[in-house]
Amino acid sequence: MSSIKVPDHLPSPAEDCEQLRKAFQGWGTNEDLIISILAHRNAAQRSLIRNNYAETYGEDLLKELEKELSSDFERIVLLWTLEPADRDAFMVNEATKRLTSNNLVLVEVACTRKSIELFKVRQAYQVRFKRSLEEDVAYHTSGDIRKLLVPLITSLRYEGDEVSKTLAKSEAKILHEKIADKEFNHDEVIRILTTRSKAQLLATLNHYNNDYGNAINKDLKDDPNDEYLKLLRTTIKSLTFPERHFAKILRLAINKLGTDEWALARVVASRAEIDMERIKEEYYRRNSVPLDRAIAKDTSGDYGKMLLELIGHGDA
Amino acid sequence: MSSIKVPDHLPSPAEDCEQLRKAFQGWGTNEDLIISILAHRNAAQRSLIRNNYAETYGEDLLKELEKELSSDFERIVLLWTLEPADRDAFMVNEATKRLTSNNLVLVEVACTRKSIELFKVRQAYQVRFKRSLEEDVAYHTSGDIRKLLVPLITSLRYEGDEVSKTLAKSEAKILHEKIADKEFNHDEVIRILTTRSKAQLLATLNHYNNDYGNAINKDLKDDPNDEYLKLLRTTIKSLTFPERHFAKILRLAINKLGTDEWALARVVASRAEIDMERIKEEYYRRNSVPLDRAIAKDTSGDYGKMLLELIGHGDA
Repeated sequence: MSSIKVPDHLPSPAEDCEQLRKAFQGWGTNEDLIISILAHRNAAQRSLIRNNYAETYGEDLLKELEKELSSDFERIVLLWTLEPADRDAFMVNEATKRLTSNNLVLVEVACTRKSIELFKVRQAYQVRFKRSLEEDVAYHTSGDIRKLLVPLITSLRYEGDEVSKTLAKSEAKILHEKIADKEFNHDEVIRILTTRSKAQLLATLNHYNNDYGNAINKDLKDDPNDEYLKLLRTTIKSLTFPERHFAKILRLAINKLGTDEWALARVVASRAEIDMERIKEEYYRRNSVPLDRAIAKDTSGDYGKMLLELIGHGDA
Repeated sequence: MSSIKVPDHLPSPAEDCEQLRKAFQGWGTNEDLIISILAHRNAAQRSLIRNNYAETYGEDLLKELEKELSSDFERIVLLWTLEPADRDAFMVNEATKRLTSNNLVLVEVACTRKSIELFKVRQAYQVRFKRSLEEDVAYHTSGDIRKLLVPLITSLRYEGDEVSKTLAKSEAKILHEKIADKEFNHDEVIRILTTRSKAQLLATLNHYNNDYGNAINKDLKDDPNDEYLKLLRTTIKSLTFPERHFAKILRLAINKLGTDEWALARVVASRAEIDMERIKEEYYRRNSVPLDRAIAKDTSGDYGKMLLELIGHGDA
């Protein structure tokens, strides 16, 4: 469920553009006005605003925002204003670059978006970067991590709910055998996790838990500092319980000494319209503090205000 | 260039359906009438005919054809009448099944279709089989062959013509080193062949040829019976010179003791509207016999007639 609040009496895109134009002009920028508009429009509405802005003023709204805003506030406003697939393309590209490398982001995007959305990310990536996503991911990784990431980011998982119990049982057995032998990078482990539908995988992992006594992610904690194992656990969590994955990312971002603003902005911008209400529940369940209060405590200014409006608690 | 001939005065889909209906009725089936219609309609026109048939008679044209026709003639008419993406989905599914397993078909579809078409095949596959293509391919293969096939069939290659010469040189070097060491299944070999754009790959392989004295496929003939190496050569040929690949498949199909009707029907049905004219040129260049004459000699009856009409030589 979406956490953003769209006003009942929605101004037209032309009216929004006029207000935004005003916010950019004169002495200083009117950040409040920008927030009051953009944080309260859904993806389709923001897209109309961008189109209308380009037609009316001959300028790209994103470029204007880039010029007017700065630092963390700039980043969250830009991420939010991008089309969802283009936003993901932008973030996964950062994640493949050396200085901003972040394999967890690749796993997250690959495993929590719907199949068709992941495909649109790959298309947007090509338009923006003139290369394919898998090309960059494969080029910037190697070994086990490449072996896991490339099939994940190229997957088009079947999304029906048909489940084969026989398969669930036999593949739970395969997973258990390989994990017991510490063959975490075995071809069959990767095949099962990267190709099966979420419904089928859930059935398989429940069989694993029932037949062998542990949740699979517990058995994958052999070496807590091993990056490949971490990514494997993130893969499983993102596929089977995305809200809890995101709640955890938020918890780690906020509790860090010096909040991880990139992680915070990433999750808020990409989930506000999707499942933020559920993420807030999971966050509270694990931290006994509401997400809005945690964010209000750790952030400030226009940046904090934008985040809070996006998660639906402007007055926290 | 397409080899089929669509009449200047095209009957309406309704008129075509009426004629087809007539061809199915009465004593015996009028195969000539079926050929004269279906072999002379392009994909969009055939799709309209199927829709119109379903609306008018409440029956699926494909089911009717299945009922009325038999053996090789049935197969070519059905393959031809399917929507291209659905036809490919049908053929790659056969190719993953034990009794009709054919990894070369997987490579061919993955490497000779445009990126967006390959994506549509993956979508059609899910609609038809309630599983993902990569799921079935990964499940039915293992080892090096899986390592090559899964990234191939999930690829969405960038199709722009931008080429990096630096990259072409450095990746040609990587390919040469690994091949010289007989590490044909090296991660880097697979990465380069499965992720780079066709334009980039062509530049890399030309560098390979210029810098190291042999075309890469020559160096990949280490063990002529090794299936993985064969698939690697097919991958390269299909990506860089698809018309020659298809001409070769046709040559092998026709020259076989007992023509390989499946290969013949596959190539004719899938390429007639795409590049059959170029394939015919390549066929003649290598065999000194025109393709139509070769097909006429090796096939007969309605089946042969249908093939010849599709390749544009009804009177051969």
